[in-house]
Amino acid sequence: MSEKTRIRRLPERGVEDREKINEILDEGLVCHAAYVIEDRPVVIPTLYVRSGDRLLLHGSATSGLVKAVRDGSPLSVGVTHIDGLVVARSGFHSSANYRSVVVHGQGRLLSGEEKEKALDVIVDSLIPGRVLDIRRPTASEIKQTAVIELSLDEVSAKVRSGGPDDDPADLMSDAWAGVVPFNVVAGEAEPSADLRHGIPTPDYLQPYSRQP
Amino acid sequence: MSEKTRIRRLPERGVEDREKINEILDEGLVCHAAYVIEDRPVVIPTLYVRSGDRLLLHGSATSGLVKAVRDGSPLSVGVTHIDGLVVARSGFHSSANYRSVVVHGQGRLLSGEEKEKALDVIVDSLIPGRVLDIRRPTASEIKQTAVIELSLDEVSAKVRSGGPDDDPADLMSDAWAGVVPFNVVAGEAEPSADLRHGIPTPDYLQPYSRQP
Repeated sequence: MSEKTRIRRLPERGVEDREKINEILDEGLVCHAAYVIEDRPVVIPTLYVRSGDRLLLHGSATSGLVKAVRDGSPLSVGVTHIDGLVVARSGFHSSANYRSVVVHGQGRLLSGEEKEKALDVIVDSLIPGRVLDIRRPTASEIKQTAVIELSLDEVSAKVRSGGPDDDPADLMSDAWAGVVPFNVVAGEAEPSADLRHGIPTPDYLQPYSRQP
Repeated sequence: MSEKTRIRRLPERGVEDREKINEILDEGLVCHAAYVIEDRPVVIPTLYVRSGDRLLLHGSATSGLVKAVRDGSPLSVGVTHIDGLVVARSGFHSSANYRSVVVHGQGRLLSGEEKEKALDVIVDSLIPGRVLDIRRPTASEIKQTAVIELSLDEVSAKVRSGGPDDDPADLMSDAWAGVVPFNVVAGEAEPSADLRHGIPTPDYLQPYSRQP
């Protein structure tokens, strides 16, 4: 299947592109972060949020990713949304519709006040309003958690949308052609079995959405 | 947010784990493949399918990923499904429900008959039955496409499911706790604007599903 992608590369591609990139990043919840250890790549999924012109990656303080950042490994971080299956009249032109962003750079481990602030930003970016409803993190919790800051300096986006782009010679084919759209749907919030009686589902979860 | 993961590592963990891993892989459409170039990691999203005990990664013959494999870079490939947002009574225990598989290894570029066969496998794994409905790929199309085989020897899976796992001391909190489930929903197949009159939507697309 062909890679019918419109590639947009930053830096210095103007506000429109940066807004599109931010939109893609803000819709995600989990990124795939790649690092290098002993000349080998390792990719892992991890929670992240975008905050201004940086990503904040969330992880366990003892994870391989965090160790690699501490040891100076550069990072490559990918976020992808699959929007549909493009069913063309040939295998070659069949494809997927998607929006993806890849960020490269040197991660920085946050500490102290900066880290505590970032943890609030992560919670409040994932669930706006949530920080006010929960207790503060303890010193031990903060110690067990790592936050990696990755600036959005070196970032590129690829987007494919729309229907199949078939060869003119294939248009008389008997094969069906089109797109199967995919959507991520957030369902109704399911209360925990041990939730105290009389606590209503908060407004920020009904409905929950990663789209603006 | 905490990493509440049950880690299952292969090889030799028995059929049950391998079946679970296959299930996770079969539900996906796009993986994040990481390679190393000049000591730096690069991650890119790309279409893949599982076929037996290997992944088949699909790409353009001129892509950086394909060049890296040709140059001997090892690969790390991640596939992740986000099943929900775990809303705990603390930031620390808040998390995501997910199923993810990571595969490590040396990719092998397929060629000749093996490659042509693999292209059929890719099409028919993405859309079972489709190969019979479309024309054969041309020699030029096959040349422009690369198929990377990656064996499932070195593979691990992480799964988090269920509700929040709060500290006992937090259970009396006034904060709501539970899970917001996420589902990927395939919509109705949308015919191409240039689809010839009278070609019905094929059965294999109504409905389309990546789940067995």
